[in-house]
Amino acid sequence: MSGNSMGVLFRVTTWGESHGKALGAVVDGCPPHIDLTESDIQAELTKRRPGQHNSASPRKEEDVVEILSGTFEGKTTGTPISLIIKNKDVDSAAYEDLKDIFRPGHGDFTYARKYGIRDHRGGGRASGRETVARVAAGAIAKKVIFREGIEVIAYTQELGGVAAGQISLAEIANNPLLCPDRKAAQRMEQKLKAAREGGDSLGGIVAIRVRGCPPGLGEPVFDKIDADLAKALMSIGTVKGVEIGAGFQAAGMTGSQCNDPITPEGFATNHAGGILAGITNGNEIVIRVACKPISSIVKTQQTIDINGNPTTVSIRGRHDVSVIPRIIPVCEAMVSIVLADHLLRQQAVVSAERR
Amino acid sequence: MSGNSMGVLFRVTTWGESHGKALGAVVDGCPPHIDLTESDIQAELTKRRPGQHNSASPRKEEDVVEILSGTFEGKTTGTPISLIIKNKDVDSAAYEDLKDIFRPGHGDFTYARKYGIRDHRGGGRASGRETVARVAAGAIAKKVIFREGIEVIAYTQELGGVAAGQISLAEIANNPLLCPDRKAAQRMEQKLKAAREGGDSLGGIVAIRVRGCPPGLGEPVFDKIDADLAKALMSIGTVKGVEIGAGFQAAGMTGSQCNDPITPEGFATNHAGGILAGITNGNEIVIRVACKPISSIVKTQQTIDINGNPTTVSIRGRHDVSVIPRIIPVCEAMVSIVLADHLLRQQAVVSAERR
Amino acid sequence: MSGNSMGVLFRVTTWGESHGKALGAVVDGCPPHIDLTESDIQAELTKRRPGQHNSASPRKEEDVVEILSGTFEGKTTGTPISLIIKNKDVDSAAYEDLKDIFRPGHGDFTYARKYGIRDHRGGGRASGRETVARVAAGAIAKKVIFREGIEVIAYTQELGGVAAGQISLAEIANNPLLCPDRKAAQRMEQKLKAAREGGDSLGGIVAIRVRGCPPGLGEPVFDKIDADLAKALMSIGTVKGVEIGAGFQAAGMTGSQCNDPITPEGFATNHAGGILAGITNGNEIVIRVACKPISSIVKTQQTIDINGNPTTVSIRGRHDVSVIPRIIPVCEAMVSIVLADHLLRQQAVVSAERR
Amino acid sequence: MSGNSMGVLFRVTTWGESHGKALGAVVDGCPPHIDLTESDIQAELTKRRPGQHNSASPRKEEDVVEILSGTFEGKTTGTPISLIIKNKDVDSAAYEDLKDIFRPGHGDFTYARKYGIRDHRGGGRASGRETVARVAAGAIAKKVIFREGIEVIAYTQELGGVAAGQISLAEIANNPLLCPDRKAAQRMEQKLKAAREGGDSLGGIVAIRVRGCPPGLGEPVFDKIDADLAKALMSIGTVKGVEIGAGFQAAGMTGSQCNDPITPEGFATNHAGGILAGITNGNEIVIRVACKPISSIVKTQQTIDINGNPTTVSIRGRHDVSVIPRIIPVCEAMVSIVLADHLLRQQAVVSAERR
Repeated sequence: MSGNSMGVLFRVTTWGESHGKALGAVVDGCPPHIDLTESDIQAELTKRRPGQHNSASPRKEEDVVEILSGTFEGKTTGTPISLIIKNKDVDSAAYEDLKDIFRPGHGDFTYARKYGIRDHRGGGRASGRETVARVAAGAIAKKVIFREGIEVIAYTQELGGVAAGQISLAEIANNPLLCPDRKAAQRMEQKLKAAREGGDSLGGIVAIRVRGCPPGLGEPVFDKIDADLAKALMSIGTVKGVEIGAGFQAAGMTGSQCNDPITPEGFATNHAGGILAGITNGNEIVIRVACKPISSIVKTQQTIDINGNPTTVSIRGRHDVSVIPRIIPVCEAMVSIVLADHLLRQQAVVSAERR
Repeated sequence: MSGNSMGVLFRVTTWGESHGKALGAVVDGCPPHIDLTESDIQAELTKRRPGQHNSASPRKEEDVVEILSGTFEGKTTGTPISLIIKNKDVDSAAYEDLKDIFRPGHGDFTYARKYGIRDHRGGGRASGRETVARVAAGAIAKKVIFREGIEVIAYTQELGGVAAGQISLAEIANNPLLCPDRKAAQRMEQKLKAAREGGDSLGGIVAIRVRGCPPGLGEPVFDKIDADLAKALMSIGTVKGVEIGAGFQAAGMTGSQCNDPITPEGFATNHAGGILAGITNGNEIVIRVACKPISSIVKTQQTIDINGNPTTVSIRGRHDVSVIPRIIPVCEAMVSIVLADHLLRQQAVVSAERR
Repeated sequence: MSGNSMGVLFRVTTWGESHGKALGAVVDGCPPHIDLTESDIQAELTKRRPGQHNSASPRKEEDVVEILSGTFEGKTTGTPISLIIKNKDVDSAAYEDLKDIFRPGHGDFTYARKYGIRDHRGGGRASGRETVARVAAGAIAKKVIFREGIEVIAYTQELGGVAAGQISLAEIANNPLLCPDRKAAQRMEQKLKAAREGGDSLGGIVAIRVRGCPPGLGEPVFDKIDADLAKALMSIGTVKGVEIGAGFQAAGMTGSQCNDPITPEGFATNHAGGILAGITNGNEIVIRVACKPISSIVKTQQTIDINGNPTTVSIRGRHDVSVIPRIIPVCEAMVSIVLADHLLRQQAVVSAERR
Repeated sequence: MSGNSMGVLFRVTTWGESHGKALGAVVDGCPPHIDLTESDIQAELTKRRPGQHNSASPRKEEDVVEILSGTFEGKTTGTPISLIIKNKDVDSAAYEDLKDIFRPGHGDFTYARKYGIRDHRGGGRASGRETVARVAAGAIAKKVIFREGIEVIAYTQELGGVAAGQISLAEIANNPLLCPDRKAAQRMEQKLKAAREGGDSLGGIVAIRVRGCPPGLGEPVFDKIDADLAKALMSIGTVKGVEIGAGFQAAGMTGSQCNDPITPEGFATNHAGGILAGITNGNEIVIRVACKPISSIVKTQQTIDINGNPTTVSIRGRHDVSVIPRIIPVCEAMVSIVLADHLLRQQAVVSAERR
């Protein structure tokens, strides 16, 4: 038990169910003297908001964050920051029919087996809605790392089998799919439309890049920065794979191809994805995560009820067709939290070393 | 700092450098009453031993483990188990020339930047040799999970671009590459031979399967079992990617393809890889990890010295051509440790629940 | 940083400042299937409420707890339980004069030196008000341990130099000081009255007894149950000393006096206070904690302002004359949380052992 | 389980049994660039060595420490430091008779009930011998804090009911009891002699002072520095009570007596013992711990065997008459480890703050 916290010095604990009263996070260990108001966090929540896009559910989540502690006169004080996002637009009636059925792809079956009891409404704690607390906490982490010049940018690398070819980061803000390839984005939109019409859903790949990260972050041998990034990203419900730098492509390379030559100006290539032996090398950190298609689909699926009897299910309600692009700020949040934590851990090393 | 431990209830701490006096591990939290002698651990170390295979370095690591504490009359007592493996065949002379050079692909540069000091001999703490302590600790974890009927099997899925096609687990023990496809294994051997002759190295993919795992293991939302597995595996120096079940392929699937239908007899497919919402579902756990090619190659590489001046380096010494198959017992160890830890964590849930 | 959590499996994180919007706690790791409603928690908060007694401040804290997550249909689900207590009767004006002054005995000076910024209103995070979140979380812990037959009872052992002589637990509920000696309680009341009139405050000793605790709780060598109890209790702002069983008296005993003889019916005496080698022995756990007098007093005190200039301060506002009896439910909460955590940790040992 | 580690950033894990092959510690998180050789540690072990004094057992523990990892060319590298002390003078024969008997005051009964199995030889893991690993790890912590000008000094405050009256720190090194009052030391010696002759043992009080500690160490609200100190000291088997500053005396004081007035030159008194609201205030840290008398006595005691049958026991073998003075370096070690950990944690706050 007690798996709802992450981080050592910058420590985030989240709580809340999809159809409960509220969701929230406690951020413990945020340094003092950081300007922080609700609008800083609200901006990140807005990126996660549904209803902005074709791929998203019509559920109108008006996610308003409130800071309950940890700041004074607009600045952090070093004490724990409590964030709350109340659930407003909650309609649990749609879930009454699903109360006794295990939805394929969801945590219904495993939560029942693990705990012997579960809040079935909207998936309870296993809902993707849980990520709203991650994004809120991540907004604070973003401010912590931004002070050090570190910036995290995530975008749509692939959706419904359509991959971004030309990567133009400037393009990301120009299309609702946050895709760096405008033409690919258009084809992705068509895929989404077709999937929605077919009562189905789509998966995709999110790419994450971290710029301005100093060398030295990461604590071998188990708390390597890539290990902690992998854990943080894999803890997102939809993620089934994580790769760093060349990732799975590295498996097919030779050493002479894969090793990044070092020059006085820096690394000549970046197959390492900015991380060597679990420690940042000063290069851009490059990560890709595989997102499975949304599990809730209208198409009829075979399943069982809680008594083990076979049945079928068609999930109507309000569901996204793809977690992309709404998962993108969640990925950014998770990476930011890991970096904030390791930044503080490394400051202990550096401070001690300088004596 | 303090990143050399993993696990919450079954907690492993490792220590030791490549060319130091010894390496070892402390396993804290191992349940009492488990039969444990050095030969149990030795068997796992042997799987990791070099010199067994074409791909491996001629360094003759006679890794003999000694149990220093935590057992009494051949059984664990619940107190911490200290394991030590002394370094015997250590020749640091070969590293004198490399003392002031940052080897591409290695942790030389990042350790220097992080700590400002490093044991350069054989890579010090960043050496793959560090994994010997993981394997030793993992042997104990294997015994813990085996009592519950859980078994971890890893094998070579791909090497040097050659993929195993036909998967026959019975075949694994029949070839030194631990490949489930005999013909593929032969082609892999040819690739290894060519790479060695060319002064180069190869990467590959290891697949890991866990059988007999009960449903219920994993602690959402951050300590999900897949998150902890990803961290544990990504903490191995050579690993650049981790995927669960359908993994990156899931990104290209639709929901109706990817969701595993549930029947009274169990899950009809296993795209989830045995894990739903971060909790085991009773199905086989399926993981794949991407291993980069060995960074130490004879081929001349461009780099810099510790003063930032450009230079070149050709690494001769005794080095494997690929981490495969020696990394396979390491992968098994990491997965076993994660499972042992989550098994104990879930027993606290179950015990509490049963009241 | 990140010191606002306690426990390993039953993990409590608290947040909130004296004059902020709210205070609260997240309880992660509470077992599922426990009946839990707000009234369970409210009952404990009431014990801590001021204005009930002569010793207490007239501040009318209407502490109403709300459960925001972690329960479903009146039962815990195994997911994190978020508790919130809103601050209602907050008057920060009285603290304006104290904004630039370090009050003796308080955390003003050290918070300023540690963080360089602080919420001065009512002591901010360092206020005794922080304990309301501990009591709320402790109420859940109490339910967890009560299922196992464990009960925690604390009472006033000494106040203002007056010690309880005759210990009659039945008497505790009969007087507002929760003192097991009626006559001593009367003398304590006189001391309180005199102190209030003199603009001064009083310290005292709280005794805590744990009944029904099974043998086996505690995790040597560092997470011994007495070590964790000492930490939990010493983390209460007012506590300056903790002793177990014979405590400081043991220092003056001989081995033949101090050792508890063991008989087939149990331990003949209880100088060990129910704990041997850091593990409960099945006997009653006996703890005493020394509480310093309330730091806020009307009497004029010498101090400095934030610029280091000498000044004097007389603290009027609404303050208790003694932390006793309001600290008593806080002590019970801390002990209950430690026991709940160790109960779960021990269940992992027992479950594993039984195989 | 897994209770054999302490610290967050400076993390110590110990292992080993009284009559096992060896005992040891892994220190993870020690900053790099600290001069460290075995002689630094040996000096501390010598202070703990028996046979130096009247109060001590004739067991001749030649404790020789070996550093197995974590240093390079005489300096720490930031990687885990593994320490080993081999058991040499081990005679388990004397314990054969005790194998089936629960010795009063010892952990025999509770270990049996907790784990269902135990190494009875010399008390196994529950032996005071376990503290040799603490002292070894503490020697490293001492070096870490000494760089910051922090020094920990412990001495005998009371023994066998005889209290030190005149405190002269210069006197400590002049008598084997490490007592700051020469005349009291002589009376203590007489008490020890009488106890030894009577087949009995004595308890006492150790005082600990920390000088040069900067303000700001401690992480409220649960990881307050006094809370962590109390835990660390209470985790020593012999300790039954811990008090800070005025401690239990504070319970009898008024606020105007207990509060330390603040002047431009510092605190006028030190009833707080150097800690306010869980954070160091720059003043001397003052701690006292109560040590129970040694549990192993020659005098016949009533007990039961492992089958619950009544019996008696007289423990002959080689035992100290009092843990004092041998416990003194252990107390210093525990305090040093806590301070080293909090020093690193605070450096993360300060570094972050300074931006």
